[in-house]
Amino acid sequence: MKNISRSYQCILLVLLSLLFGASNAVAQNSLPSWKDRPAKKAIIEFVSAVTDEKGKDYVEPAERIAVFDNDGTLWAEQPMYFQVLFALDRVKVLAPEHPEWKDKEPFASLLKGNVKGAMADGMKSVVEIIMATHAGMTTAEFEAIVKDWIATTRHPTSKRPYTEMVYQPMLELLAYLRASGFKTFIVSGGGIEFMRPWSEKIYGVPPEQVIGSSIKVKYEMRDGEPVLVRLPELDFYDDKEGKPVAIHQQIGRRPIAAFGNSDGDLQMLQWTTAGQGPRFALYVRHTDAEREWAYDRKSSIGRLDKGLDEAQAKGWTVVDMKQDWKVIYPHEKR
Amino acid sequence: MKNISRSYQCILLVLLSLLFGASNAVAQNSLPSWKDRPAKKAIIEFVSAVTDEKGKDYVEPAERIAVFDNDGTLWAEQPMYFQVLFALDRVKVLAPEHPEWKDKEPFASLLKGNVKGAMADGMKSVVEIIMATHAGMTTAEFEAIVKDWIATTRHPTSKRPYTEMVYQPMLELLAYLRASGFKTFIVSGGGIEFMRPWSEKIYGVPPEQVIGSSIKVKYEMRDGEPVLVRLPELDFYDDKEGKPVAIHQQIGRRPIAAFGNSDGDLQMLQWTTAGQGPRFALYVRHTDAEREWAYDRKSSIGRLDKGLDEAQAKGWTVVDMKQDWKVIYPHEKR
Repeated sequence: MKNISRSYQCILLVLLSLLFGASNAVAQNSLPSWKDRPAKKAIIEFVSAVTDEKGKDYVEPAERIAVFDNDGTLWAEQPMYFQVLFALDRVKVLAPEHPEWKDKEPFASLLKGNVKGAMADGMKSVVEIIMATHAGMTTAEFEAIVKDWIATTRHPTSKRPYTEMVYQPMLELLAYLRASGFKTFIVSGGGIEFMRPWSEKIYGVPPEQVIGSSIKVKYEMRDGEPVLVRLPELDFYDDKEGKPVAIHQQIGRRPIAAFGNSDGDLQMLQWTTAGQGPRFALYVRHTDAEREWAYDRKSSIGRLDKGLDEAQAKGWTVVDMKQDWKVIYPHEKR
Repeated sequence: MKNISRSYQCILLVLLSLLFGASNAVAQNSLPSWKDRPAKKAIIEFVSAVTDEKGKDYVEPAERIAVFDNDGTLWAEQPMYFQVLFALDRVKVLAPEHPEWKDKEPFASLLKGNVKGAMADGMKSVVEIIMATHAGMTTAEFEAIVKDWIATTRHPTSKRPYTEMVYQPMLELLAYLRASGFKTFIVSGGGIEFMRPWSEKIYGVPPEQVIGSSIKVKYEMRDGEPVLVRLPELDFYDDKEGKPVAIHQQIGRRPIAAFGNSDGDLQMLQWTTAGQGPRFALYVRHTDAEREWAYDRKSSIGRLDKGLDEAQAKGWTVVDMKQDWKVIYPHEKR
């Protein structure tokens, strides 16, 4: 049945596109959570231009690569990156197996509920916590841990599942781009194996189009069965200058559209827009303290400072969440 | 026009699949260069099983991941890996800029035409030659160099372009799998950026589905323009145990079908077949000294020894090029 219903969808789409011209019809109905303001207009103009076969800015479907940051761009990142909250939860779960943590920072502070104290050493603390909680198991075991956590844990303030803390307008944008022949990729500073177990269901982005930070893994035989074991060693940090590098190594084409929310995405937006032909860069700016959070130039999480200056200087699209989005989260639609 | 003709193709495919059942119709016409022998039969049986929605072995299209080695599996690798021939050519081109090479091995021997002498230090020599010829330029510059070389150079014995030294039956297999809903990936020990400039045109495999060995690249600004500079430092060696690792890091799903020709592919075939549900593993065995080359257990290039034992023990499909393939190269069809 699935193939047949897909087939009818296919016929329908073909007929629609022959009769009306697909891109206009799609655009009008694809971004219902976006207010009719400049950001929405800029998106639709860009997509219409690159899909218009008779226009000067037409781009072959194979080259329609769009890259999205995740934290703060597709889902929320406050009061802390969700993956850090995952790691903190894992420290609690694993503590009984690690009696030495009682006297060892950053774990000792953490286990006493003193998150600030645990983070006293900054990135060093974060790396120690990540390695202690993300390595040492097989990739299959880690996937099961992530799936379980994401299915059962709630966000500390909203009390909703993390997968409901995604931005409805961005889900619509992902779908609109795909309906317009784009291939959508995630390029995140977050862990690649923290995102892949749910990215396809939530974002429609399959694992092979999820790029992120990673730790090393090692192939070995256990009882005659091959496994991949996660090692406590950084493989790649996919942030700032790392993002164009990862895009190059893993996609091998320069994107024509890039979406981010912080200075960590700046190099990705620079790299994207420096290519020839039509290009699109968009920053999501967190301006809505009531429905979401308001932060930018001075935030330690998701700081948007240099990026905002460059966006203004280069005319990139900046989304004002408060002004541009009718709803923030999917549940508001219901 | 392109979109419209694609649309008609789409309608046609839909109607055909509704009327006749797609997989049988496709299979009968998809592997014309394969003789009706066990290897072809095994391929068609596997593909029919995983695409039969009513069968117990049905696999959702999203999970239909097939991985192919390149050297010796999709194109020839004798008398030497083609990328090594590329590197040797580059040494000659770059020699005027490197007067010191006249007294420095492995370059000195190479420039005198003494390849064997140059390779006296084995992998150490190869790495030195690769780093001297593959690094130091931007990624865009390297892509242009590869494109030019592949378009203008001829294979030393056949005198044909390297892109005509691909195996016609494997091209048909790639296309057949894609027509059956598979996503086809290359997972090669060769350099990722040596393959990407031509993989889409020759194999129908887009750059984002090409995985291989890589050197590090660095993002930097030159005259206000961002570039990626290739560094003389290995990033990842995609061979043996590296192949399942790369598959995991870059695809994030376990393939259900894997195709190789050497012991360097063994771990990829093990990893693929150790997954649950229907699995397919195939080795191409070079048995045709007349039309191609004959080598396996004792060859220094593309050695197939342990892999052959394991294929026989586990019942993997082994293609006998001489017996199974009506033609080897595309030009034989004409």
